[in-house]
Amino acid sequence: MKAVVFDDRLKVVEREKPKRLPGEVLIRLERAGICNTDHEIIRGYVPGFSGILGHEFFGYVEEADDFSLAGKRVTAEINISCGECEFCRKGLGRHCANRTVLGIIGKGGAMAEYVAVPRRNVIEIPESITGMDAILIEPLAAVLEILEQTDIGKGDTVLLLGDGKLAQLIALVLGKTSCSLTAVGKHDYKLALIEKNTGARTISLDAFKPSAFDIVIEASGNPSAFTLGLSCVKPRGIFVLKSTYAGGFNFNPSPVVVNEITIIGSRCGRFVEAIRFLERYKPDLGDLISAEFPIDEALEAFEYSRRPDSLKVVLRIAQGKE
Amino acid sequence: MKAVVFDDRLKVVEREKPKRLPGEVLIRLERAGICNTDHEIIRGYVPGFSGILGHEFFGYVEEADDFSLAGKRVTAEINISCGECEFCRKGLGRHCANRTVLGIIGKGGAMAEYVAVPRRNVIEIPESITGMDAILIEPLAAVLEILEQTDIGKGDTVLLLGDGKLAQLIALVLGKTSCSLTAVGKHDYKLALIEKNTGARTISLDAFKPSAFDIVIEASGNPSAFTLGLSCVKPRGIFVLKSTYAGGFNFNPSPVVVNEITIIGSRCGRFVEAIRFLERYKPDLGDLISAEFPIDEALEAFEYSRRPDSLKVVLRIAQGKE
Repeated sequence: MKAVVFDDRLKVVEREKPKRLPGEVLIRLERAGICNTDHEIIRGYVPGFSGILGHEFFGYVEEADDFSLAGKRVTAEINISCGECEFCRKGLGRHCANRTVLGIIGKGGAMAEYVAVPRRNVIEIPESITGMDAILIEPLAAVLEILEQTDIGKGDTVLLLGDGKLAQLIALVLGKTSCSLTAVGKHDYKLALIEKNTGARTISLDAFKPSAFDIVIEASGNPSAFTLGLSCVKPRGIFVLKSTYAGGFNFNPSPVVVNEITIIGSRCGRFVEAIRFLERYKPDLGDLISAEFPIDEALEAFEYSRRPDSLKVVLRIAQGKE
Repeated sequence: MKAVVFDDRLKVVEREKPKRLPGEVLIRLERAGICNTDHEIIRGYVPGFSGILGHEFFGYVEEADDFSLAGKRVTAEINISCGECEFCRKGLGRHCANRTVLGIIGKGGAMAEYVAVPRRNVIEIPESITGMDAILIEPLAAVLEILEQTDIGKGDTVLLLGDGKLAQLIALVLGKTSCSLTAVGKHDYKLALIEKNTGARTISLDAFKPSAFDIVIEASGNPSAFTLGLSCVKPRGIFVLKSTYAGGFNFNPSPVVVNEITIIGSRCGRFVEAIRFLERYKPDLGDLISAEFPIDEALEAFEYSRRPDSLKVVLRIAQGKE
């Protein structure tokens, strides 16, 4: 089968079709999205990663123990957990110490014609959700995680740093709460999309004058936004960190103590919440897909997704119904 | 009156007795404690500070609008707030943007024969609490703030970094919860005190092998403990920061995101909670007072309080009943 592999470099190669083990489901993939995490892997952010990339996808069930799954349109939770450790027992398998993560840690991903994943990770996509929207379930779940970790509500002033793929989804989700949202970014086109899709107030980074917000969310991926964001959190306010950075920077946490700020790291979320959100609000996510490339042109797709005006770039793996 | 002043250097000087304004209470001071914050001020941590130090104290009411206060044994909340801003309206005067702070920001402190403070800051010390214990009300309130900000309870594994004055009080307070506490410090004598007074498990920093805790509290004042502490927080765990540092250090917050860690800055607390704690548990705080010096020997007292084996050092300002 064709697969997009990163070992020391990114390439499209022929790989053996994975063999489904008992308890696993073999998925024939249709589309897979390119995420910033994929770019970070390519830049060496995940030490020792070698294998098939891809953790945002949908496809059709090819083989499963349960015949009733055959042909179903599915995606899958990316954290493959042990089911037995203290985190798994608390329903936090995404923090399982023994986990592998599809296309990120110790397990090949979904930028390939087939992937085999445990049955309990597989999630059927309701008919009301398009396949293209389903590609965004994983990042959308990560965004909804913010609402699981914080209580963002009426009257809260929220500053969102960033205007990329993740920030677009954050603005979309926060637009459904009754907070007062201001998004700050570098790209006029992307800020305009946020305004159009969410009604949030947007300000270009150049024109932004730091002021105090109840909650600040850093989703720009730029370490300088950490410092800027922290300086914009009110005393007793919350700083939500969605971005990871490749390197460190100089930091003095004294203002965190003096102003009793809470910093909350936020990563993956529950797919079921993302599906619920898509079913309830039926948002138009078309603007968030910038381009689609056949899997053979994965290198061009990765290149395209690095463009400043690019949002989600999708690999077309099979010629399905979508 | 005599006063311990820091402008460009620490000195004991003669100053004019403060004039009580309407709404203020004039307190004749009895004892004042030396806090790490005083040392940080001397090292330049509070830019532009110049004046009388001291924010841990007790004394007797000399003059007040309300005659019934005359002669009462009192201490005072150190944050002098405007009463009108959004934080004051939420009962968080200690985050008032317009506040002065006794002996720390814009307001002379209590290492002097007299201090005048607003009536609403003055707190009468119940008879069951000794004056020496009352000196510890301010730091104890700061420790109890941790319990206002977090939910430390049964079965939680807690790592406390530090064995100094603040850490001793933290161990004392956490000893009254049903958490499992491990304290790590550099000083055998101080660790032994923690074991004796709180029953916590203690480990010398040299012998400590980092492992994972539900909650980590950094109270050592050493920036290297920030990095160590963060590495010991379980996924979805809490890192409470009590220490402020004079300088910055290299930091990459990615593990905070990946492990969804919550960092909580924690500073001042409510005096009423500290008084309630002292009345309820009647802890023996005698071990925490290392020495007492007359105010004339304040420089020697500050020197003494820098000794590695020293805990709270107290200035004797008047020869009162304690």
